Amino acid sequence: MSDETKKGTAKSPGEFELITRLKTKLQTNDSVIVGAGDDCAVIDASVPGKWQLHKTDGMVEGVHFTRETAPEKVGHKALGRALSDIAAMAGSPRWAMITLGLPDGFDGEMVEAIYDGINRLAKRHEVAVVGGETVSNPERLVISVSVVGEVDRDRCVLRAGAKPGDGVWVTGELGGSIAGHHLDFTPRLNEALWLAEHFLPSAMIDLSDGLAGDLGHLLDQANAGAELLETALPIRREARLRARESDAAKPPLLAALTDGEDYELCFTLGQGYAVALLDQFRKAFPETPISCIGKVVAEPGLKIQQKDGTKEFATRGFVHFQ
Amino acid sequence: MSDETKKGTAKSPGEFELITRLKTKLQTNDSVIVGAGDDCAVIDASVPGKWQLHKTDGMVEGVHFTRETAPEKVGHKALGRALSDIAAMAGSPRWAMITLGLPDGFDGEMVEAIYDGINRLAKRHEVAVVGGETVSNPERLVISVSVVGEVDRDRCVLRAGAKPGDGVWVTGELGGSIAGHHLDFTPRLNEALWLAEHFLPSAMIDLSDGLAGDLGHLLDQANAGAELLETALPIRREARLRARESDAAKPPLLAALTDGEDYELCFTLGQGYAVALLDQFRKAFPETPISCIGKVVAEPGLKIQQKDGTKEFATRGFVHFQ
Repeated sequence: MSDETKKGTAKSPGEFELITRLKTKLQTNDSVIVGAGDDCAVIDASVPGKWQLHKTDGMVEGVHFTRETAPEKVGHKALGRALSDIAAMAGSPRWAMITLGLPDGFDGEMVEAIYDGINRLAKRHEVAVVGGETVSNPERLVISVSVVGEVDRDRCVLRAGAKPGDGVWVTGELGGSIAGHHLDFTPRLNEALWLAEHFLPSAMIDLSDGLAGDLGHLLDQANAGAELLETALPIRREARLRARESDAAKPPLLAALTDGEDYELCFTLGQGYAVALLDQFRKAFPETPISCIGKVVAEPGLKIQQKDGTKEFATRGFVHFQ
Repeated sequence: MSDETKKGTAKSPGEFELITRLKTKLQTNDSVIVGAGDDCAVIDASVPGKWQLHKTDGMVEGVHFTRETAPEKVGHKALGRALSDIAAMAGSPRWAMITLGLPDGFDGEMVEAIYDGINRLAKRHEVAVVGGETVSNPERLVISVSVVGEVDRDRCVLRAGAKPGDGVWVTGELGGSIAGHHLDFTPRLNEALWLAEHFLPSAMIDLSDGLAGDLGHLLDQANAGAELLETALPIRREARLRARESDAAKPPLLAALTDGEDYELCFTLGQGYAVALLDQFRKAFPETPISCIGKVVAEPGLKIQQKDGTKEFATRGFVHFQ
């Protein structure tokens, strides 16, 4: 993005403003239950009892991976990111299509390895890969994945729906994803389906841009805020290690709040269900950590209870157009 | 593509070989009626009476348009190409998603203008734009569009199905698209729907890579060949002009067979319907040319009847993975 664009002048609006303007102008119709602005679009495609979920996601060499990243992992991540968004609505992915932009001098083995990563993850979640296209993008590899899934109409969980008093929950661990997790994560599809079936969260999102920003989307939709407990945050070991090894690294709390690429679920649920959820979830998914990290409050803003008092946290993660 | 890849060695297989290998390995499931290899994938998504059509298509600055191309036209073309593939199955497009890879120094107005082009075409065909994403692709603009459409189960027209004796038909005009048509075309959605309702072609494809290559796909599926009449080919005026103006330009016949980007329909239909089709189509679509250009024959290969005799035409257009 150019400096001029970042300034957000009338001629070159900032990304956030641009996205807002684009969204209001998007062509729509009666079949669209939820359009751009949630983890996936929710569509009435005339499937009895189901909504369809439509999602597209793009990755670029030098931004989301490097030329040295193993191509199987590039494929895994590309599909996994879109599946994580399907999980965030408690949906099941069904069909995927891939567009590969191949740099000059690409190697057929690399393309096959990317597809190996895609196919392996697709098989695990019974996703059919129904189309692909290759184009030339001379300078770098780009990969765009679109996924169509489905969800029971009465079990679709949106970003909107959190209420003051609800507990705030996350699966897995947060921060320090760049050390490796961002290429190896498992989209939380099974956990999300189970949660929707047994507890039906009031709101849910996947953590791709960092807890502070992504939880912020849930809170914006609810016109509410949240109070989190620092001691309850499941900070990934790598985030603590990085902070210990370098003064230039983010402190672990900041890493957990802003690093992004966790690909975990963040959801809200009435506090009355907290003990039952903890108990049953741990039995159903003994290998997936789950943590209640705080609660939704009426007053907007994100507050963190630390040893030395409660502090407001202002920073937001990246803004994407979806 | 690197020279090494073009050579098609075992280590760096040529594109065609690579595609074939990738296709056989794609993860699939019972819902996939037709997977990668037709204009769109055909999916049983449990919609009563309908199949869904899934399509993805990518465009890259410097390949499909230039930095000087009006951004509205870039948007129009990006969506239009995918809609043309939906038309080729006699389907109706319903939902679209866009991934934009934005170059350094992009301008918000440019992005809005691209979306204006997309939204205008979407509105004309009642397509809802249900998601978008922007990523950074520093050197050049890339745009990937995915579209989901639907088609009556008994009116879906595939690439497979042509029979020796069928007439070969095309809508519109062929060749010289680069003079402007490739940015301004109208996907033949209405014509294709009408054809499927009134005549049900035995096979159909959209002309994106040139008549010789695309008709070749229909013939490959039928294990058959075709004889075309040079005098019956609706050669675009611009193709004739270019040939007249420069000795370096393709002769008009070659342009019509290989230029690509016509975005017209090519279909086959039993010859017994020829007169009725001509008559009724011209009444229904007085502004869309339609031409019977030859017939399917049992012997594989593409032959052209010219003034001085019948010649075999060997060249194929580009090979894409879809």
